[in-house]
Amino acid sequence: MTNPTQITVEKADGIATITLDRPEKMNAYTGTMGAEIIAAMDDIDADDKVRAVIFTGSGEKAFCAGADLTPEGGGQVFSSGEEVKDLSDSRVRDGGGLLTLRLFESKKPLISACNGVAVGVGATMQLAMDIRLASETARYGFVFARRGIVPEAASSWFLPRIVGISQALEWCYSGRVFDAAEAKAGGLVRSVHAPADLMFAAKDLASEIAENTSAISVAMTRAMMWRLMSADHPMEAHKIDSRAIYRLSRGADAKEGIASFLDKRRPVYPGRVSEDMPDFYPWWEERTYE
Amino acid sequence: MTNPTQITVEKADGIATITLDRPEKMNAYTGTMGAEIIAAMDDIDADDKVRAVIFTGSGEKAFCAGADLTPEGGGQVFSSGEEVKDLSDSRVRDGGGLLTLRLFESKKPLISACNGVAVGVGATMQLAMDIRLASETARYGFVFARRGIVPEAASSWFLPRIVGISQALEWCYSGRVFDAAEAKAGGLVRSVHAPADLMFAAKDLASEIAENTSAISVAMTRAMMWRLMSADHPMEAHKIDSRAIYRLSRGADAKEGIASFLDKRRPVYPGRVSEDMPDFYPWWEERTYE
Amino acid sequence: MTNPTQITVEKADGIATITLDRPEKMNAYTGTMGAEIIAAMDDIDADDKVRAVIFTGSGEKAFCAGADLTPEGGGQVFSSGEEVKDLSDSRVRDGGGLLTLRLFESKKPLISACNGVAVGVGATMQLAMDIRLASETARYGFVFARRGIVPEAASSWFLPRIVGISQALEWCYSGRVFDAAEAKAGGLVRSVHAPADLMFAAKDLASEIAENTSAISVAMTRAMMWRLMSADHPMEAHKIDSRAIYRLSRGADAKEGIASFLDKRRPVYPGRVSEDMPDFYPWWEERTYE
Repeated sequence: MTNPTQITVEKADGIATITLDRPEKMNAYTGTMGAEIIAAMDDIDADDKVRAVIFTGSGEKAFCAGADLTPEGGGQVFSSGEEVKDLSDSRVRDGGGLLTLRLFESKKPLISACNGVAVGVGATMQLAMDIRLASETARYGFVFARRGIVPEAASSWFLPRIVGISQALEWCYSGRVFDAAEAKAGGLVRSVHAPADLMFAAKDLASEIAENTSAISVAMTRAMMWRLMSADHPMEAHKIDSRAIYRLSRGADAKEGIASFLDKRRPVYPGRVSEDMPDFYPWWEERTYE
Repeated sequence: MTNPTQITVEKADGIATITLDRPEKMNAYTGTMGAEIIAAMDDIDADDKVRAVIFTGSGEKAFCAGADLTPEGGGQVFSSGEEVKDLSDSRVRDGGGLLTLRLFESKKPLISACNGVAVGVGATMQLAMDIRLASETARYGFVFARRGIVPEAASSWFLPRIVGISQALEWCYSGRVFDAAEAKAGGLVRSVHAPADLMFAAKDLASEIAENTSAISVAMTRAMMWRLMSADHPMEAHKIDSRAIYRLSRGADAKEGIASFLDKRRPVYPGRVSEDMPDFYPWWEERTYE
Repeated sequence: MTNPTQITVEKADGIATITLDRPEKMNAYTGTMGAEIIAAMDDIDADDKVRAVIFTGSGEKAFCAGADLTPEGGGQVFSSGEEVKDLSDSRVRDGGGLLTLRLFESKKPLISACNGVAVGVGATMQLAMDIRLASETARYGFVFARRGIVPEAASSWFLPRIVGISQALEWCYSGRVFDAAEAKAGGLVRSVHAPADLMFAAKDLASEIAENTSAISVAMTRAMMWRLMSADHPMEAHKIDSRAIYRLSRGADAKEGIASFLDKRRPVYPGRVSEDMPDFYPWWEERTYE
């Protein structure tokens, strides 16, 4: 992975922290930033030392102020270049969606530590993260209808699942910017923190996962929940969790789980997400854009 | 549209208000009322001046006291006429479902201002509206199990999505009538208001949409959210929002969105829902009863 | 039904109470217990006098402390016997899933009265129950990731529907044990009660159903909600509820519903779930494990 220029990635104590790092631009999103986050996720998924990922923004003002529409930002979003006729052409694909679909495939838990303004793709990219924490100074805006466009980054799939259809529609219909308290009341964020406490809270949660659980268990749980909750019958979940219990209960992590439990000590699970996922993983076919 | 007899439709300031208007019958639902609401929706969807719709009941007592079972009400619900043998016959179709399926297709945001008693179809018709406000005097009842029938108007699809499966089942299993506070706690309504404030609150919300947003953005957002939240993978949303961002970001409303934002003035979007929806809309095939 | 050894089943006043009854083992789950609950459900579904089911645990400490991993408990979960190669072999099927899939098919409302510790399958089996009540002493744990395995019993389908994807992931990622207050705040339980009040509250709720509603209406409502909420379009619900309203509104329970309402007396519905379900029930095809 070449050195990123618009994000920073820090790894410590089993936690990777990805910081959107254009503070002079309120961390506005660019195609470069998206590609750098995707590259960082590829690196993180292959790095067995990383057990959880925290996303935050640089500076005190913003998590991410949306797409950078200036020429410097690439300006592709509202580009007036030659128009592609066939909408199934992959050049039509929304950049925010490329990012959230990559986050969807993550093998590690994703935690958002929203430290300030998060509008447009700055808000929607967080929907593909598993758990959202907010600073008291956080501000959210699904502002698309005020710009003549629509919610992107697959947020019409993510947002109603997280906050319910009515709250999702109200925020997107109005396009208004709202504060952390409204985000908490509406179910968008799990907890609201003083600005100085935000990263500590996010790291506490990440550490609780890193220190107590099997990486394979967590990667499997992530894939199962996000994919199987949409099935039309619980039998679909039963098919997968039966296979998983069957294989994993005979594996090294289960032995260590029971041994450490009986010994009342902290577990050290040997399983590696990079190499030791059960033989039937992945059990789904890749989706393609068309 | 011929003059309706059981509802009134008022249009002002970009907002259409549909009032169920049989106050002497607690606005009980009839086949005529259902047909009049559907006709009003057809008119509203074709009228670009209307940006949002508010539903309420006439008088101080009721929003809608359910199906009118008297002969005057048509009495079709429990009719004992000749029984149709083939259940795929369209004469079998539930009238409440004809109404909620039409609301599902609406291009305009639908806001319920529930001013009193709402039981049976008076409760279930509101589930197909996007956002529900209640007066402190509102009372809800999914009373079907106390009448020997079942929740109708496609409410077994709508209700669990809005309030969760457990709350949906408890209300429908018990059939009890409950107040606005329980409705709010259970997630059925967004907010509870003094009776005198209810319509002002509903109009504030409708105006926030009408004054700040693109009609095309809102119509697209509505279709995307209600349809794509049920997809089995976020790729399905990515396919549609990519197309929408691609087309709309090159359109007149996006230009006006940016221009008004930079000028710090109220936007005037030229796009008309009646004629200017993007070329790939609608992207779904119509469902048929069978 | 032969006499069960690890549960007790009591029937009174239209309510069946199933008590997990291995208090010296904190009611730990075994294959025998699972089979006995399934047999009890078969009996209950066929017994028209039973209108609702309450599940609780024996003793003051536990609802169910998870799978009994000792040889006495069958120890099948982590057995090291000859490994089945073909994961579609039915011997691979998870025992917790056999139980929750049977609960999914129940014709009677299922109420959990969680009186103490509920971890592992002790927590996940409750997800297939319709409504969950907790004692102040209840403790829940989706501890699978701390044991090197994954959430089972089809809980990757059930849990996100009940508490949302983010809360479901946090509880399963961390594997932590949490109290009744956190369960309530997170949407896992409907209400929290003093230990002495728990069973009274559960019985009040069961009685409200038993005394006021049609058994057929309730059985149909249960099947419709759990199955149709996952449909990709409300038309799917309209197809079923149209058929149900059409048939049931001409039936004996609907007549009694209206007659008792007009007479202001308690209804006595003649319909029997064992024999009088509408002709199109069940409308779905059985799912098979493969």
